[in-house]
Amino acid sequence: MTPPHRPLLSQARRPLTIEIPAVDERGDTVPTSIAGEHPLTLYVDKREIVTLMTLGAAPEALAIGWLRNQRLVRSLDEIAAVQVDWDTDAVAITTRAGMQDAERKLGSRTVTTGCGQGTVFGGLMDEIDQIRLPHDRQLRQSTLYALMDAVRHHESIYKQAGAVHGCALARATPGGCEILMFFEDVGRHNAVDAIAGQMWLDGLDGSDKIFYTTGRLTSEMVIKTAQMGIPFLVSRSGLTHMGWQIAQKIGLTMIGRAQGKHYLLFSGADRFERD
Amino acid sequence: MTPPHRPLLSQARRPLTIEIPAVDERGDTVPTSIAGEHPLTLYVDKREIVTLMTLGAAPEALAIGWLRNQRLVRSLDEIAAVQVDWDTDAVAITTRAGMQDAERKLGSRTVTTGCGQGTVFGGLMDEIDQIRLPHDRQLRQSTLYALMDAVRHHESIYKQAGAVHGCALARATPGGCEILMFFEDVGRHNAVDAIAGQMWLDGLDGSDKIFYTTGRLTSEMVIKTAQMGIPFLVSRSGLTHMGWQIAQKIGLTMIGRAQGKHYLLFSGADRFERD
Repeated sequence: MTPPHRPLLSQARRPLTIEIPAVDERGDTVPTSIAGEHPLTLYVDKREIVTLMTLGAAPEALAIGWLRNQRLVRSLDEIAAVQVDWDTDAVAITTRAGMQDAERKLGSRTVTTGCGQGTVFGGLMDEIDQIRLPHDRQLRQSTLYALMDAVRHHESIYKQAGAVHGCALARATPGGCEILMFFEDVGRHNAVDAIAGQMWLDGLDGSDKIFYTTGRLTSEMVIKTAQMGIPFLVSRSGLTHMGWQIAQKIGLTMIGRAQGKHYLLFSGADRFERD
Repeated sequence: MTPPHRPLLSQARRPLTIEIPAVDERGDTVPTSIAGEHPLTLYVDKREIVTLMTLGAAPEALAIGWLRNQRLVRSLDEIAAVQVDWDTDAVAITTRAGMQDAERKLGSRTVTTGCGQGTVFGGLMDEIDQIRLPHDRQLRQSTLYALMDAVRHHESIYKQAGAVHGCALARATPGGCEILMFFEDVGRHNAVDAIAGQMWLDGLDGSDKIFYTTGRLTSEMVIKTAQMGIPFLVSRSGLTHMGWQIAQKIGLTMIGRAQGKHYLLFSGADRFERD
């Protein structure tokens, strides 16, 4: 898939951690790195849409991905420019022809369990029935273990400062598994959206990819993964019943509580091969 | 403080966990308890306000607390009835005289890093400057350790099914620490809001209480704790820089990364006494 026309982008990454003094149980002052958190207000064609609280690692990808996952734009071609200005804590997005069905979607607020942002405008379940995930791809147990290894070794803010969630987009390779992109944010949904945005920017299709998250597999997480066309969802955390029900309904391969050699396969077993 | 007039309440708790089959790394099928997640749409005086995704453990307290923490009602007296109906996944709230400044507040969407819900209508920082926390209360290290012990021993959904966050309201006692209420939800912000709602229902003042959360100390968590008048905030997790800045600004005593005998005191040291 050739990369689509790329919008005009700023590159406005914030310093991700800040060192502050804290006092421990012995009374010693300990310099401690903590994660940044900044408001970022999205304006689309000069209209204020939402303010997201973000780590600030990838604000352009986040803005694009948020619009994608809210289904307010349908393809990257619709976006002409994304300009982040931290002086005003704002990102100005310009579209070529306006947003899709904006009034209806922006009028309906479902606040989900999302970390980072939790509003899926326009109804949580609207388009689930239209999602079709491929069944011709397999995930091998060895690939899963290679993914978990790769994630564990990946440099991260979490290791340094905690308080963030991470998401990775990966694919199987002959040798195991390759992480294509890794995003962290103070909320797991911002990290998901940044991946969705970057996939568009890089022209990546989801059907042969694996999505890994440190965050919990709730209804919103499952829906977003499926909307990105990705059939494999892996988390080191747990899941909710609604997340499970949706995964079953759309035939997503969902693996949770993945740590070390342990994991639980909850759904979509037809695509999974133990070695 | 005498309990205020109590609104008419339903008592509509959902089954909190559901058992489903999962396949582990050995290929064995393992019955696994997972947390429920249900949409709950809040209607105030027949007007649809928001849909929260919740575990369903305390929907009435959650609805009241959500309205309190969004500053859409100022006291319990304003609420005449809270009726949850899971057949329609809805809670109907009736007020005595309408919501405070609803149009302005509902028109402004800040989506924060909250788990459970992440929208603080009407601006995140609007009323921070008006918050005054008492400085005549002390938290002793021994009380902190007693709190962490009590939380660890508290029966919880998390121990059984994972994927939830817990919050506790506690107070110091001569013997150590007493947990007054403990709420879990799929999102930490729902758990906070349920505590806020139950405090109103029980007529509890926050100034001599300690707030414990398993969730991270972000800007929204710090603001909500302060809005409830509670000077002590403890988490086993980390914090963000904005959470720290706000705690510093309003003089909240904030302790993070609290596990076992370890903790870090980040703010409000004037109220903390090591033993």
